[in-house]
Amino acid sequence: MTLVDRVLLGPGPSNPYPEATAALGAPLLGHLDPEFLRVLDETCDRLRTVWGTANARTLPLSGTGSIGMEAAFANFVHPGDVVVVAVNGLFGERMVDVASRYGATVVRVDHEWGEPVDTQRVLDAHGSPAIVAAVHAETSTGSRSDIGELAAAVHERDDRALVLADCVTSLGGIEVKIDEWGVDIAYSGTQKCLGVAPGLAPFTVSERAWAARVPKPPTWYLDLGMIGDYVSGGAGGGRTYHHTAPVAMIASLHAALGRILDEGLDAVFARHELAGRRVQDGLEAMGLELFARKGNRLPELTTVNVPDVDSATVRRTLLERYNIEIGGGVGQYASTVWRIGLMGHNARLERAELILAALRQVVYR
Amino acid sequence: MTLVDRVLLGPGPSNPYPEATAALGAPLLGHLDPEFLRVLDETCDRLRTVWGTANARTLPLSGTGSIGMEAAFANFVHPGDVVVVAVNGLFGERMVDVASRYGATVVRVDHEWGEPVDTQRVLDAHGSPAIVAAVHAETSTGSRSDIGELAAAVHERDDRALVLADCVTSLGGIEVKIDEWGVDIAYSGTQKCLGVAPGLAPFTVSERAWAARVPKPPTWYLDLGMIGDYVSGGAGGGRTYHHTAPVAMIASLHAALGRILDEGLDAVFARHELAGRRVQDGLEAMGLELFARKGNRLPELTTVNVPDVDSATVRRTLLERYNIEIGGGVGQYASTVWRIGLMGHNARLERAELILAALRQVVYR
Repeated sequence: MTLVDRVLLGPGPSNPYPEATAALGAPLLGHLDPEFLRVLDETCDRLRTVWGTANARTLPLSGTGSIGMEAAFANFVHPGDVVVVAVNGLFGERMVDVASRYGATVVRVDHEWGEPVDTQRVLDAHGSPAIVAAVHAETSTGSRSDIGELAAAVHERDDRALVLADCVTSLGGIEVKIDEWGVDIAYSGTQKCLGVAPGLAPFTVSERAWAARVPKPPTWYLDLGMIGDYVSGGAGGGRTYHHTAPVAMIASLHAALGRILDEGLDAVFARHELAGRRVQDGLEAMGLELFARKGNRLPELTTVNVPDVDSATVRRTLLERYNIEIGGGVGQYASTVWRIGLMGHNARLERAELILAALRQVVYR
Repeated sequence: MTLVDRVLLGPGPSNPYPEATAALGAPLLGHLDPEFLRVLDETCDRLRTVWGTANARTLPLSGTGSIGMEAAFANFVHPGDVVVVAVNGLFGERMVDVASRYGATVVRVDHEWGEPVDTQRVLDAHGSPAIVAAVHAETSTGSRSDIGELAAAVHERDDRALVLADCVTSLGGIEVKIDEWGVDIAYSGTQKCLGVAPGLAPFTVSERAWAARVPKPPTWYLDLGMIGDYVSGGAGGGRTYHHTAPVAMIASLHAALGRILDEGLDAVFARHELAGRRVQDGLEAMGLELFARKGNRLPELTTVNVPDVDSATVRRTLLERYNIEIGGGVGQYASTVWRIGLMGHNARLERAELILAALRQVVYR
């Protein structure tokens, strides 16, 4: 069987770090094996470093990134709670859907796509929400929002309100400082800047959010109390089996986090910055127009307006001729925006030069 | 870093088929890549063969086995529905919990652990349930129940009642015939007889169950309507992105299913039967007493009463001296029962001889 070898420069998954791929193929361990539990503990420790948190409740959930969003609302929305959601792209939109399913009274604050979240408008939307939710790095638009500013403003007004942040496309690529910012609930995915295959959702919860959680959420699989008894040990100290952990994926995340911390977080962020700026400068030099607002562009995910060509044809040509995947846009921007990700192991200058060169060939020759 | 190489003879995970491990390390594909969608389609086709079904709605869900149980109840329990659950072990017990969370009025039919499900008692428990649920192969006890008999009896009395079966420890190891038996909703896990790492839950739904599903379930991540639009294509025929599929895990399942179908389902079942009977005969020859009732013992998972030794010490010795993992019991049987799995790639005579020899050394020397 011939294996297709793609360069994954879309909005994720990205090509994993080599260490992550090697760990996937290592001998499997049982989910209760002391050797595996050591790997799990170390994975949670490494996640704390990357999240910038001391939260005891920091763990990888057993599903892809979206399961993080589901767990966040399922465990912290009490029916009737007011949840203010900043919507500036698809994932804010999705938060509205998920929060509503768990019985929230959702107050949505719509922004134009490509714009960052406006802290003052979010504050003004409701005087005493239970939860204020926003996306740090909008995967649909390539725009970064200032979660630190938002969290500080929310807590300054009302210290009971919880701040919930989607960090799926930010964790491991740009700075995330859960404790310093005062974020209470956050989740991510492994297939973006963390450089692992999709399949896990890193999750973290502050002590005050933990104390305010729904004691028995409608979901069994994502009941954080029960999961915590396995991952961190229960009240009696011992670990209680909940569900069989995806051991191979956790070993892979463990290896990728080891690689990231060996390189150093600051160096990893600088690498994302360098590669992202190179591709953004190069696209502009080609005469293309970037989509996300200047000053809020994510280095790891660049959005660019499609010039006068057929978007799908260009993407198909990139895939067929060069084995390069880039993403189309989302919703009304499906055929007018391209999304180019330089995430994790792909956040390198050689990837930036490659996509610029390939696009030049396909679009201008 | 030294890698620990275990022989996983517990209740799962088991050591994956070599083809499954190789596929985990293959180059990653994007979840919307035509090459990946071909792999996904073929995986669903192969799952249909293994399930014994023509159900269009047959797919791998993005979580470990328990997410299958969650999806089953979340998508098919309308609040207030009467759900009859046959409880003859931990997983029947869990069904009661999950069904209750989704608003079911649960009628539980308790059996002694180790016994198979008693069709007549389940029928007698309620005259017109919406759903009748039972576990095919109870992972906690090693007991097999006759799901075909149960389904036929339920449908004969009331053709609107749905039959829901947990096949986590049966699929790929013993015969499962969804269509012939008349099962409406069933789920499994990859880490048992399918010979893949944990991380996916194969799922199948009959047309009549599909028509009766909850249109907008409380869970977004497991909303089968939305997932179906990605996996099988929506009403318009096109595929709609839902969540990023765990592509590496799906490639691995695809490879394991290919291996299973190349070997032939009947040959695979015979291999499980041969290895399982050998270990059961060998344990009895050693003077040990099997736990599950004779006539209903699973070949792939053997339960045995712990003789006059400390259960935990024996298990630790097996792990430390021979790198062999076996399972303890569950609940009240935690320290009085061992669970020995010969599943998937481990369903081989050499594994049976190995565990018999090792146990003999540890228990009797």
